[in-house]
Amino acid sequence: MITALSEKECHSLLRGGRLARLGCVAGGFPYVVPVNYVFDGESFLVHSMPGRKVEAMRADPRVCLQVDEIESHLRWKSVLACGTYAEVSDAAERARALACILSAFPHLTPVESVIADDAGAPSPVVFRVRAERVTGVKEG
Amino acid sequence: MITALSEKECHSLLRGGRLARLGCVAGGFPYVVPVNYVFDGESFLVHSMPGRKVEAMRADPRVCLQVDEIESHLRWKSVLACGTYAEVSDAAERARALACILSAFPHLTPVESVIADDAGAPSPVVFRVRAERVTGVKEG
Repeated sequence: MITALSEKECHSLLRGGRLARLGCVAGGFPYVVPVNYVFDGESFLVHSMPGRKVEAMRADPRVCLQVDEIESHLRWKSVLACGTYAEVSDAAERARALACILSAFPHLTPVESVIADDAGAPSPVVFRVRAERVTGVKEG
Repeated sequence: MITALSEKECHSLLRGGRLARLGCVAGGFPYVVPVNYVFDGESFLVHSMPGRKVEAMRADPRVCLQVDEIESHLRWKSVLACGTYAEVSDAAERARALACILSAFPHLTPVESVIADDAGAPSPVVFRVRAERVTGVKEG
C-alpha cells in the first residue's frame, strides 16, 4: 500500500539526506544524475563541475530533486521537490555556499583544494534550487 | 577525477541493478521516481500502478533510467539510459513480461496476488523502455 508522506515527513527526509537524484530537461529529454546536496529547509545547495547538466539547467531552469530511503522493494520512502535553478555567482555568496557544502562533506575539501590550486581546472558551479513544491510517498 | 564508463561497464551495471530512478517530463517539468526494473541487455521492463508517471509517459514518451552504485562521495558509478516508453498491452506479452519481473522480485509476488484477487484494484501497468542511448561516468 503506497501512501502520501506528510509535509513534516518530507522535510525530515530532505534535511537528513545528502544524496539526491537531480532531474532536468536537456533538449526535450529528461536527464537524471546523482548529486550531493545540503538542504536548509527551503533550498537545496549543490555544486557541480561545468558540463551537460549545468548547460541544460541554464537553458531550462525547471529542475527536481528526488531523495529516497529504500530498505527493500516493499519498504521505502521517496520525496520529490520541484523548483527553479538559480546559479550562485556573487563571489561572497558563492564562498559562503561552498563553505556550507564543504562543511557537510568534509571528504570533499582536499579535492576542492586541488581544484583551487590548479589554475587550469574549471571552477565548480554552485547553484541553489528552492523547493517550491514538495511531495512524498511511502510503502511499508 | 570523473571519467567515462565503457559500453561494457555500462551494460554490466544495468544488468546487475534492480533499482533505477526513472525520469520523465510531466507538463514541461522533470519528474523522477524510483522504480524496480529488469534489464535484458536491450530494454528495461518495469511495472507500476497507474498514476502520475504513467500519465506523464503516455503524454510524452521520452524517458530515461539512471542506475548507480555509490560507495562514497568520491567513489561512485552512474549510468544513464535514454529511450522511449512503450506500454505492454498485448495480454500474452504482458503476462510474460510480468512473470519475468516477478521472477526477479519474488517478494512482490504475494502483493501482486493480492492485487490480482481484488477485483476493485487497478491493474499494474507494464512497460518497456529500449535503451537507445547509454552513457556512464565514474569517480574513484
